[in-house]
Amino acid sequence: MLTYDLTQGDGPLYRRLYDAIRRDAISGNFDPCEKLPSKRTLARNLGVSAITVENAYDQLISEGFVYTLPKKGYFIAPSIPQKRRVAQVLDLEINATPNRAERGSDAASILFDFSSNRADPELFPFSAWAKMIRAAMTTREKKLLEPSPGVGVLELRRAIANYLASFRGLSVDPNQIVVGSGAEYLYGLVVQLLGRDKIFCVETPGYKKPRQIYEAQGVECRLARIDDKGARVDELKRVRADVAHINPTHHFPTGVTATLSRRHELLAWANERDERYVLEDDYDSEFRFNGRPIVPMFGLDPDKVVYMNTFSKSLAPTIRISYMALPVALANRFYEKLGFYSCTVSTFDQYALAEFLRQGYFERHINRMRLHYSRKRTRVLEIIRRALPPETCRIIENDSGLHFILQLQTRYADAELQARLLEKGVRLAAVSEFDEKEAEEYRGMFLLNYSGIDLNGLENAVAILKDAM
Amino acid sequence: MLTYDLTQGDGPLYRRLYDAIRRDAISGNFDPCEKLPSKRTLARNLGVSAITVENAYDQLISEGFVYTLPKKGYFIAPSIPQKRRVAQVLDLEINATPNRAERGSDAASILFDFSSNRADPELFPFSAWAKMIRAAMTTREKKLLEPSPGVGVLELRRAIANYLASFRGLSVDPNQIVVGSGAEYLYGLVVQLLGRDKIFCVETPGYKKPRQIYEAQGVECRLARIDDKGARVDELKRVRADVAHINPTHHFPTGVTATLSRRHELLAWANERDERYVLEDDYDSEFRFNGRPIVPMFGLDPDKVVYMNTFSKSLAPTIRISYMALPVALANRFYEKLGFYSCTVSTFDQYALAEFLRQGYFERHINRMRLHYSRKRTRVLEIIRRALPPETCRIIENDSGLHFILQLQTRYADAELQARLLEKGVRLAAVSEFDEKEAEEYRGMFLLNYSGIDLNGLENAVAILKDAM
Repeated sequence: MLTYDLTQGDGPLYRRLYDAIRRDAISGNFDPCEKLPSKRTLARNLGVSAITVENAYDQLISEGFVYTLPKKGYFIAPSIPQKRRVAQVLDLEINATPNRAERGSDAASILFDFSSNRADPELFPFSAWAKMIRAAMTTREKKLLEPSPGVGVLELRRAIANYLASFRGLSVDPNQIVVGSGAEYLYGLVVQLLGRDKIFCVETPGYKKPRQIYEAQGVECRLARIDDKGARVDELKRVRADVAHINPTHHFPTGVTATLSRRHELLAWANERDERYVLEDDYDSEFRFNGRPIVPMFGLDPDKVVYMNTFSKSLAPTIRISYMALPVALANRFYEKLGFYSCTVSTFDQYALAEFLRQGYFERHINRMRLHYSRKRTRVLEIIRRALPPETCRIIENDSGLHFILQLQTRYADAELQARLLEKGVRLAAVSEFDEKEAEEYRGMFLLNYSGIDLNGLENAVAILKDAM
Repeated sequence: MLTYDLTQGDGPLYRRLYDAIRRDAISGNFDPCEKLPSKRTLARNLGVSAITVENAYDQLISEGFVYTLPKKGYFIAPSIPQKRRVAQVLDLEINATPNRAERGSDAASILFDFSSNRADPELFPFSAWAKMIRAAMTTREKKLLEPSPGVGVLELRRAIANYLASFRGLSVDPNQIVVGSGAEYLYGLVVQLLGRDKIFCVETPGYKKPRQIYEAQGVECRLARIDDKGARVDELKRVRADVAHINPTHHFPTGVTATLSRRHELLAWANERDERYVLEDDYDSEFRFNGRPIVPMFGLDPDKVVYMNTFSKSLAPTIRISYMALPVALANRFYEKLGFYSCTVSTFDQYALAEFLRQGYFERHINRMRLHYSRKRTRVLEIIRRALPPETCRIIENDSGLHFILQLQTRYADAELQARLLEKGVRLAAVSEFDEKEAEEYRGMFLLNYSGIDLNGLENAVAILKDAM
């Protein structure tokens, strides 16, 4: 039954009722041809006279919002007029969606998508997370409603500091940590912290988003080419960077891990000037499957590195919690300059995550994910190696991350091969798409994101790839 | 029992154990003088030899982290050395904390605080909210892990649009709505959307935060004086504002509601130029206790007003969900220019809130809060009127919001009176504190935030106020 509060609004009652129904019709709250209540029923429900409803209905009929059928009643018009049209909401993919591969195709025709970096949803620890949320709500009622410090609640920052100490070998004071709703939000805070006069620099090839964000934030963002040892210092110098935003642990998309000597060169570069910093984006460091873990650059020089990590990859991309560890001097500057900000993460989630970390759930979850992905990775590599011999397909990987690189021997240009694959329903992203120059050195290199793919269709998809090459 | 994963890290085993314990000591994970396990026990637990533990303990002793007592064992040093000191986290108050009133006092000595705008925690609908979260987690497992569009999930935007239609009389397409983790975050998005070349303008007196945010965001933010009819158009013209960020429904702190004719003047001003906008901050519109509800300015001219509201006041300040309704042209610009951003609110909270709105919980919650605060307000006004006759204390209020103004007849300057009150443990914020000029017209005007106060101590606090005047 339609229920409107007619005590609100201007003008006579019938006019308010007309307005209310018209608004609902415009807003799409009625189905086309939906039956409206009879005059008498609606009048009784709203506590107005039947004549009021009649006047409202008449007005709606005269404007074409409503029609009437004798002995049947009143109905919403079949084509409800839309006063204003707004752009359709694009179902934006997170991070690594290759635009080129998407062009000229719609999602429905995709049978197999190697370009999506979505995680397997069944891996999310729903029951443990639900338990943490429930526990927070029953045991911390009062604390949940107290505003958290702008940097996040102490319990969570302490739990993160312990995690960083145990698993990344970093010694961080909880007061150096800033919690925020996603790495994208934290990039913006870094801009505000360091100042818009700084020249930011990101790697190319690389994620497009950090650069989009820096530009939206009104700072100059330049590109530095990388090589097989990591971000290049000569490039940072060439573009006169102040802040180098890099992925030394596992570069996206090339998968390069910066060598220790390159790390030291980068830190030496940062130490040449007071206001030079490295922003170390450690986005998927949890997924290293073999070999010695790599100490983050923050551990080598905690005065010159802003360390950033997220629970997007390790927990769920839709629980928006990321954090950064700031050098002590920048932490103090943060409190002074940006301490007025409220934390953007709900205290409910902050306390839930703190306990999730503290009680060891996160560690167990990561171990489970690592095992799952390690097995999946092995299986994927097997299938590819069996179908594509090394002379046609070189696999570039270093036992870490949720994607690796295929270097394909093919006479087709990258875009051409992608188009051929897309015709057959296989979507594959090229490294060159992530490079500003689409440099020749990346020709034939494609990303294989295996986290979200279905192993059942993989052999078929690889066969399609083989054919298309 | 201490448990470390010694398979990680560099160097010999004893060194890794030393590092781990040292790190814990530095991070404050031990209590001073805490007893450590015996060499043999720890060795067994970690699966290493006793000599490894001994070497680690010896190193820790030599550096002063650990001491040993014969026949008693090993202990953490009484004063654990702190390698680095970081600024203490300030327990930042939200929004309206009067800095001046705080000076020279610590929170513990405050008996009665009229300056806090915290809500009564017992009003939060824990059980309904818990139910919504639980329902989201059991019925929408898959959807929860799908990235939400940057503007928020459609279900929530639809529920907000319906709410705005029913309760604020606004006709908004869900695609005009942008959801974000707090109004502060949305201010930043508005800056990015409209561009940093615009001159933003906020009201004075007024909240300090929007201005702090605009300045941190690198845009010029100027101040426009208000009068008893609302924001002044001549002031907007004087400072050459492009964007007027105002509170027309219930101005903070003066409580002024902009008149209809002033609203039209402001809209006429905005319509003089293409890129002029009003940013209507409708932060506590839910708390109107009597009289006709006021149609937001967005309803008068949806092409020239960015409407912003938050669930901070109406639900809980620590659940970080705010939203804005954009003019259609700006919504399209948002998708085009800023569509790459991920939404900063967890999908769990988004779906929970959507259902909370859709199932009528929010409406019931607001009605309950409104009743609660209306009664509390009446009681507070009674107590004040009884103790302070109208010739010494004029009450300025317009039946809305969670605070009102006391205009006190006193020979003391505002700061002096505040200091006298603070000595007696009563904290009161002055309107002049929120004014750039501390203008004479606001002398003697004080804010009474009644949402968080305890009625039991109120008579006593008012008596103290009477004495101090």
